[in-house]
Amino acid sequence: MGLRTANLEIATTAGTDVLDLTDEVEAFVAGSGIDTGVLVLFTPGSTAGITTIECERGAIADFKRALNRLAPESDEYEHDLRWGDGNGYSHVRSALIGPSLSVPVLGGRPELGTWQQIVLCDFDNRPRQRRIRLHLMGE
Amino acid sequence: MGLRTANLEIATTAGTDVLDLTDEVEAFVAGSGIDTGVLVLFTPGSTAGITTIECERGAIADFKRALNRLAPESDEYEHDLRWGDGNGYSHVRSALIGPSLSVPVLGGRPELGTWQQIVLCDFDNRPRQRRIRLHLMGE
Amino acid sequence: MGLRTANLEIATTAGTDVLDLTDEVEAFVAGSGIDTGVLVLFTPGSTAGITTIECERGAIADFKRALNRLAPESDEYEHDLRWGDGNGYSHVRSALIGPSLSVPVLGGRPELGTWQQIVLCDFDNRPRQRRIRLHLMGE
Repeated sequence: MGLRTANLEIATTAGTDVLDLTDEVEAFVAGSGIDTGVLVLFTPGSTAGITTIECERGAIADFKRALNRLAPESDEYEHDLRWGDGNGYSHVRSALIGPSLSVPVLGGRPELGTWQQIVLCDFDNRPRQRRIRLHLMGE
Repeated sequence: MGLRTANLEIATTAGTDVLDLTDEVEAFVAGSGIDTGVLVLFTPGSTAGITTIECERGAIADFKRALNRLAPESDEYEHDLRWGDGNGYSHVRSALIGPSLSVPVLGGRPELGTWQQIVLCDFDNRPRQRRIRLHLMGE
Repeated sequence: MGLRTANLEIATTAGTDVLDLTDEVEAFVAGSGIDTGVLVLFTPGSTAGITTIECERGAIADFKRALNRLAPESDEYEHDLRWGDGNGYSHVRSALIGPSLSVPVLGGRPELGTWQQIVLCDFDNRPRQRRIRLHLMGE
């Protein structure tokens, strides 16, 4: 078994962004020389997350609405009272969604469903340059 | 280190199904020849998820009730307005729970707690034939 | 590629505990002899979870408040009606957060963000001695 690593970089906005990483992830896996294995994606940071969704405008809007029920942007947060960051809701959403995703690789491709895309969720209240770390193990 | 892979197949109903995969997962690991490692489970698809729970009737009913608070079946979803699928709530639940789970393997067994089972959560509004991909790395 | 494993042990209280594991995890990785790879953390048990958060008092309080909206301690749970455990909310929270986390390792360190810590979330309604299993694969 071998190991290949890479970084993706992506610029985000001040709103809750749900950004499709699938094409870049597939390109990395295809170029890795690894046919079968496991790909781990991870975003360093406490105000973002990684998951999968059918990445079309409607489902993304629905997902954002659910996130705003889980941790409303308009609530008062103790994190903000202590630090004045205004992104208390971002930290809560990140802890709920989680920063990592593991995807099986087969035939040199991530084994996603037809309508399933890998997305970075940026919850922060200011634009960020996000990094997504890819570690692929396999043979 | 080596790599073993398998597919599980499971039929689901139109309701939210929480289905115990533990026996089949344990059989795969026991037969793999791998003593110590990591098992990654992943379900391809954007209306399902994988997690662990104490798989008894009460806890499952409680879990479903919480999911229905997170993404109520009765709400209006933009996904449904755009595509007419009627499963907007399924996509949101899937993005929240996530499609993958990683479990350590030790002594030829997944290291689960006594009352902890691995479950597929099918959120779709129609019966599906679900596939769960298992990738086991170890020695 | 090689494999290193370890257990962490941590005592919890009767409330919802969010406990920082980062120092112990970093010490394990640093002493493993593995420079680049993937670390999988898993807590055996159906009333706990693992995620990351900025581990400061305010964000933890905000996270607990969101968990109590997701699965309120004061609700009636079918698990409790059937088994009398009183920890129905704990099972639901555990299924939502999930028991595992995968973190890339680079330069002999987990690749966390500056303000991102790895935390065990104990949701149970009584003190527990928790075990966290660490499986590190890499080279």
